[in-house]
Parts: sequence; structure tokens; C-alpha cells
Amino acid sequence: MTGTSTITGGVTAPRGFRAAGVSAGIKASGALDLMLLVSDAPAQAAGVFTTNRVQAAGVLVSKEHLARSGGTVRAIIVNSGCANACTGDVGMRDARTMVEETARLVDCPVDQVLVASTGVIGVALPMDKLRAGLPHALRALGGDQGLAAARAIMTTDVGPKQAAASITIGGRQSTIGGMCKGAGMIEPNMATMLGFVTTDAVVPKALLERALREAVDLTFNAITVDGDSSTNDCVLLLANGASGAIVDEASYAAFVEGLTTVCRELALAIVRGGEGATKLVAVSVTGAATSAEARKVAKVIANSLLVKTAIHGGDPNWGRLICAAGRAGVAFDASRAAVTIGSLVLFEDGQPHDDLGPKAAEYLKGTDLTVGVHLGAGTESSTVWTCDLSAEYVRINADYRT
Amino acid sequence: MTGTSTITGGVTAPRGFRAAGVSAGIKASGALDLMLLVSDAPAQAAGVFTTNRVQAAGVLVSKEHLARSGGTVRAIIVNSGCANACTGDVGMRDARTMVEETARLVDCPVDQVLVASTGVIGVALPMDKLRAGLPHALRALGGDQGLAAARAIMTTDVGPKQAAASITIGGRQSTIGGMCKGAGMIEPNMATMLGFVTTDAVVPKALLERALREAVDLTFNAITVDGDSSTNDCVLLLANGASGAIVDEASYAAFVEGLTTVCRELALAIVRGGEGATKLVAVSVTGAATSAEARKVAKVIANSLLVKTAIHGGDPNWGRLICAAGRAGVAFDASRAAVTIGSLVLFEDGQPHDDLGPKAAEYLKGTDLTVGVHLGAGTESSTVWTCDLSAEYVRINADYRT
Repeated sequence: MTGTSTITGGVTAPRGFRAAGVSAGIKASGALDLMLLVSDAPAQAAGVFTTNRVQAAGVLVSKEHLARSGGTVRAIIVNSGCANACTGDVGMRDARTMVEETARLVDCPVDQVLVASTGVIGVALPMDKLRAGLPHALRALGGDQGLAAARAIMTTDVGPKQAAASITIGGRQSTIGGMCKGAGMIEPNMATMLGFVTTDAVVPKALLERALREAVDLTFNAITVDGDSSTNDCVLLLANGASGAIVDEASYAAFVEGLTTVCRELALAIVRGGEGATKLVAVSVTGAATSAEARKVAKVIANSLLVKTAIHGGDPNWGRLICAAGRAGVAFDASRAAVTIGSLVLFEDGQPHDDLGPKAAEYLKGTDLTVGVHLGAGTESSTVWTCDLSAEYVRINADYRT
Repeated sequence: MTGTSTITGGVTAPRGFRAAGVSAGIKASGALDLMLLVSDAPAQAAGVFTTNRVQAAGVLVSKEHLARSGGTVRAIIVNSGCANACTGDVGMRDARTMVEETARLVDCPVDQVLVASTGVIGVALPMDKLRAGLPHALRALGGDQGLAAARAIMTTDVGPKQAAASITIGGRQSTIGGMCKGAGMIEPNMATMLGFVTTDAVVPKALLERALREAVDLTFNAITVDGDSSTNDCVLLLANGASGAIVDEASYAAFVEGLTTVCRELALAIVRGGEGATKLVAVSVTGAATSAEARKVAKVIANSLLVKTAIHGGDPNWGRLICAAGRAGVAFDASRAAVTIGSLVLFEDGQPHDDLGPKAAEYLKGTDLTVGVHLGAGTESSTVWTCDLSAEYVRINADYRT
């Protein structure tokens, strides 16, 4: 028996995980800014990280620890309000201090602690505040604190982002829960913004890594808000085995299905809450020669400012969709291509169907949209999710630090 | 003796060229929308065209005519207000009708006429209006009508864009003049938005083509407004020999210098007048292993929404510059890199220099800016010009057709 059903909750939905979100004073606003996630038993962990050439201190330290501990993890410590990126030797020392102090409090080996930071690049962490905040986080740990944890990792996010699913593995019930943050500097590439996923299934290292890679490719790696991949992106997955449900080759598909469901819900929450976003847009590219080409075309369309502004304005300007497809560096013949808005075909066989314009404009008044380009060059496809581009996006990012 | 000096005027600055800009009623506003450029004698022509897979009818017809006539051209006919792209067989027939009617009026072979269109994609040309407008354009032709011509090719441009230079070739004075249009859907790739350049020098076909390619690579191909390459981009260069100044291998450098000067002035006018733009920004990438890698990094920075909005807000957020550089797919070591805003070094040797933030913020209040990233990976460099991203850009493009 397999099957995935979504449930409420986040990282503390699976058994054996406790979390906390507290205010350490890193954010001037006094909002929650320090998150601690602890697995009661050592968990098997897998991570995917930003491919940006410039990587934050937390990314470097977490990769090092995952390698050194063989993927055994007890805790993750995360701060928001400061990215600790491009902070040189000071930043590396600060990230190491964060994991050392956390390991001491949680009482585990230092390399069983992972660390992540998010916020402004190039600013050093206020270590006195962090040090003072850690004991508060420890005391606040609870199996019901997933929501506080999700709040504590937010920056420009409009709200916390959580998802969870119940799955059946070899006849036993198991749970997958997750949270993420991210609203701008979003076009994850092999990784994503900060995402943390827990499960109480028993998952061997190799299967856990494979499952994370597969799920992320279809979810976090298939979204974009503004085309910028951050220096701090990472998704971490912890499996502590508390449910006793064992993932093996036979039950792997059920686990990946559940994991993908949780990751997709989290990834779409990022796009829906994208900076200044008012609409979630699925860009579906079909009829491609390869799925990689379909993804490439979908990404170019999803990042086109002209497409994103047209959708913001409710303008069924399908010419911008095919124009963007045409500059993706993928071979296709415009006279065999088609452009759809919702289920309406606005361009086909080299001819516009402009009579459908008013219907398409009506459709674009919705907030959950699909636009498509059929390339007529094969049978492969890919879907990428993006949001519209509003004047509010510009306001948020022109004034981010002031 | 070589030497370039810029002068006033545009496509009619060189001897033997006449132009006209009239209103044919294609634009509902009644603004000028039909441009005719005629060389009194057959001119040698060279062109570079969009690399978008989707190409407008005018682009296809002009490429065909250039090949068929061996590059001999008497006239160029251009309409604004309608791109005649993605218009199928009807669009091809309409583009052919435009050149046929023009050839009849100018009295030259059909393949000596080139054609370009700019405006909304996917809408058919109003051929009755075009046909009625052509005789008006013929009557309006004049050696002093360069400015009207530059106005007639505008769409969302805030004003006409012209440039001209006087050069000395083998002891003889010669002139190069040009005009262009473009404010959005701008990241020319091997070509540009519409650009028309004339010269009265005598330039053999091979040298003319080489000179255009070289000049365009450093100018039109080094600008971006919004990262979108249009279906209609082209730059056409006509040399009618009226000055008697002969360009050969010896005087080639002088000609390219003059041509590059005119093209750069036109290209920067596009960026300065970019949709919603308030600032011109030169993105200078140095210390690269190859010039291609420098250009690649500069383009990613120049297209980063986060960089463009930070500059709009006057925020010296150098972290966004190095973050964008890091995702360009070019190898470099962040600890050897440097980031500059104007002449201020805000990040170097892995360390932020945040004390310079206020000075950098003051500098960013200007409208003609330079930002730089030194990769520390070699000695090659590249400069790309971009503009800031404002809420006005969103307003313009959300409401383009309504």
C-alpha cells in the first residue's frame, strides 16, 4: 500500500523532531530571527546547496560537516536578518562558533550540527546577540513549535511556509514535514532558498540523497521569482527513523512521491509569496525535443520581464511568450509552434487567433494561471512556476536596506 | 590623417541620402509612423539581424534581398506601431507588398529595397493605410529630414535617437550618420533593435560587413534594458560613396573608429531612454580569464533585477553585484574578487569596506554611473551598459496594449 495525503504542520509533524523560533535581536524589528531544529536521535541527512560561485559561510560549513559526519545530523541552527556571505575569515569563524555553541547546548559532536543564514549579504553576524539567543532557543524547543520555527527563518516573506504529508511505507505510516523561506533572489539552481524537510522514516544515505535530488529537481529547481540564485540557497532533509517505516528500493517510489508533494507545496508557496507577486503562473512548455530543452525554454519565458509584466497587467500579449521562447537558444519552427493562455490557443500554424483576446484577458484576471508554448519539435515537456512582476517588487528591492 | 569628430544630425548627415517621416495612421495617436530612407545612388549595404528563432516578416525579406542584390540598396522602408511578426503568410505577403510599392515609387529593382517593422507582435499590418502613406513619404523626402525619420521609427521611445560623426579617410572628409529606436525588449544578441546608419564613404562589401560586425559587437551588442531580444532587431548600414573617400585596408581603422563612435552614441541613447530608466549604468568586468567570460558576467550583472532595483533605490548593495557574478557560470574565487561602485572599492580580499557605504550612496544619486567587478582570474575585460529598473517600467509594460 502506498499513497500520500497532505496534512497540516511542518518540520515537527514527523515524530522525534523538536524546533524553536525565538528573537535574538538580529532583526532591528524584534521579529523572530533564530531557529533551532533538533532530532532526538541522530538523523540521516542529505543536502543540496547553491551552485553560485560565491557561497555563504554557512553553506561552506554545512557541506563540510555533512561530508565529515557521513550525513549524521542532530541539529540545524539558522538565523535570519544577516546572510553571513562575503564576510571573509570573520564570517567563517562566526559560522563555526554558531555550530560549536549549538553542539555544546544540544550535547552532540560539532560536525552533527548544520548551519544556515539568510538576509543582507556582506554584513557580519552580531555574535553577542547570537550567543545570548541560543540558550533561549534551546529552552523554547518543542514538538509543537514548527510554526514559530518557520517564522524565524523569514526575511521579506509575507508569511511562514510549511507543508507536511502522511505516507505509507511497507504498511507503516510515516510523516514528512518541511518549511522554507524565500521571496526574492529566487531562481534556485540545483538547490533553492532555505528549505528544511524532516521525516521519521528510516532512509539509507544513498536513497535519501537520490530522493532529495529527484524531488528538488521537480519543485524548488523549477521555480523562479526574479532569476537571481542566492549565495545561501540550501535544502536540508533529515530522516530520524522514529516511525520505524523503512524506505528501500521497493518503497522508494512512495517516499519520493510524498517528498515531492511536500517540496512542491513549499516551492509554490515561495512563488505565491514572491516579492510583489499577485499571481502564480505555471509556464508549461510542450512538444520539445528533450526535457532539458523544454526546461530551458520554460525558464526563459518564466524570467522574461515582458511576460511577467504583461501577466501583471492582465494583457494576453502572447507575442511576448513566443518571442521569449525564440531567444532561449533552442531550435524550433515558429510556424509549427502554438501559444496557449489557460486552455485558449492564441497562436497556431503561424496564425494569431486574436478573436480569443478578450476571453484570455478575462482568464488572466485569476490568480492561479497556466500559460503554455508548444514547440512542435518533439514530445518532451517541462513546467516552471513563476509569478508576475509588479511595481511593488521594485519598491521592495529599491529600498531593501534603507 | 585619421580622426573622428562627432557632429549633429543623423542618417541624412552624409551626402546623397534623403529621408522622410510621415504619419500613415498606423498608430492610433496619429504620431509619425512611416519612415523612408533613400540613397540617390545605389549604396553598398551590410546588415546584422536578430538571432531570435522567431523572426519578423521584415527581417526575413530584408535578409533575402541583401543576399539577392549582393548588398546593393537604394531604399529602406520602415513602419512603427506594428511589428508584423508571427503574422504567418499574410505577414510575408504584406512585407513584400511594402517593398514592391516602395521600389515602384523610388524607381529601382525590388530587391534593392529593405524593410523593417516595429511595434506589437502578432498583429497584421493595416495595408490600406500603408499604401496610402507611401506616396506622402516619397513627397516628404529631404536631405534635412533625418530628425523626422528618427521620430517615425519610435514606439515607446521617449525621444528620437540620432548620431553622426565626421571622419577623414585617406585625406578626404567623409561622414557617418545614424538613427535607432528601442526602449524595451532590449538585449540585442548579434544584432539590435532597429538601427540605420549611412555613410558617404566608398566601402567595399567585405570591409563594410566586417566594420559593421566589429562596431555592433562593442556597442549595440553590449547593451541591455530588460534582457529580451526582439523578433525584429536589425542594424542596416548603407555606404553610397558620395564623398569619394575610399575605405581600404589602410584606412579601415579610421572608418571603424568613426562607425563605432556613431553606433555607441546610438546604443547608449537606447539605454538612457530605456523604459522607465532614470540612470545609465556601465557594468565593467575586469580580471577575467577571457573577454567572453568577462562579457558573460557583465551581462548577468546588467540583467539582475536585484542589481537594477538597488541602483534605482540608490542602495550601494554590492553583495547583489558579486552574487550575480557568482551565478554567471564563470569560474572565479570570491576571496580574490573585488567590487567597485564608481571609484570606491566596497569589497576586496574577502572583506567588506562598509565604511564607504555612505560615499557610495552619494555617488549613486548621479545618473551616469559605473559599477565594476574584478574577478581576479585573469587580465581580460568587458563593459556592458544597462539602466536601472523602476516601478515605471512595470507600469509601461503591464499596460502596453491597453
